[in-house]
Amino acid sequence: MKRLGILLSGRGSNFEAIADSVAAGRLDAEIAIVISNRREARGLEIARARGFPAVCIPSKGLPREDYDRQLIAELKSRDVDLICLAGFMRLLTAEFCREFPMRILNIHPSLLPAFPGLDAQKQALEHGVKISGCTAHFVDEHLDAGPIVLQAAAAVLAGDTAETLSARILKEEHRIYSEAIRIVLAGGWRIEGRRVVVD
Amino acid sequence: MKRLGILLSGRGSNFEAIADSVAAGRLDAEIAIVISNRREARGLEIARARGFPAVCIPSKGLPREDYDRQLIAELKSRDVDLICLAGFMRLLTAEFCREFPMRILNIHPSLLPAFPGLDAQKQALEHGVKISGCTAHFVDEHLDAGPIVLQAAAAVLAGDTAETLSARILKEEHRIYSEAIRIVLAGGWRIEGRRVVVD
Repeated sequence: MKRLGILLSGRGSNFEAIADSVAAGRLDAEIAIVISNRREARGLEIARARGFPAVCIPSKGLPREDYDRQLIAELKSRDVDLICLAGFMRLLTAEFCREFPMRILNIHPSLLPAFPGLDAQKQALEHGVKISGCTAHFVDEHLDAGPIVLQAAAAVLAGDTAETLSARILKEEHRIYSEAIRIVLAGGWRIEGRRVVVD
Repeated sequence: MKRLGILLSGRGSNFEAIADSVAAGRLDAEIAIVISNRREARGLEIARARGFPAVCIPSKGLPREDYDRQLIAELKSRDVDLICLAGFMRLLTAEFCREFPMRILNIHPSLLPAFPGLDAQKQALEHGVKISGCTAHFVDEHLDAGPIVLQAAAAVLAGDTAETLSARILKEEHRIYSEAIRIVLAGGWRIEGRRVVVD
């Protein structure tokens, strides 16, 4: 059974969606550890309530390198096969990424490469796009830049606010993130240039 | 009846789709003039065969400003309400754009702001996106940058080449370009920031 490590900073709704997929048997994996960098993250509470191992490793005031070394140690001690970022609001160091090559996934609320970074849904609205969506991608040391595993489109509707658009995109995030994890864990894929090619 | 001016440099398949929409009564407009900057453009032939006024204004060797002034004169003499670029392989000057504010449309084979410029489909494939598409947008003096009227998504499939992806996107281009022209001609829209807001 493949072991997932979840990193989050907030409510972790994508973590919940992954946990639901595991519970429903749609994803053949187990959640080995949930880590938050913020003690008040609701995702930690939810993890404990659902019976998953959950720890807080506070990041406040720590140099990025020191913090990431603590993360690496915790994830290795839990023998994690794949790391899933679920609203983890930190850039990872190159050292962290080298430690887990092509073993870190993220979900981002836009059709990358459009609108990387914070407030992607607001960026999309302000740019005036009529279609946005979400992207499940491998993580490297650059922001929202690694090879793309899956994407889903979502319409931007007249009268949308950042909240209504975010909600529509979030539904797609919940759907494709588990599917992307399934694809990555199943193997039989390779990276060509920056493309994820599934055999 | 609103009068369209079409600018093209090649086969002009989007021009043909517009002409089909007009002929079928799906688009309440007439094609007042088709202009190519290349004498050998197949779009010119097709325009003449279908009975539309068609002229070549050769661009080769001309300074951009001089060329655009010739274009402006021709379009004004034809009393054009809306200019539709259909594979017109030239950047327009700021002077040209100022002459026809929010009266120039283009169709681009990607979900802008991703992959502006040439070979958008190849750019999308090489970036490894799983969803691309096309964008009907107003034209300003910047490359593929004006406010967006409509977009359509198209899946990138395993095994796609630039050719197969282009063909899939082209179908969507043909569909949304006429619809975008219809929206713009119908009025009842405004620009807010860089958003096209339809009432």
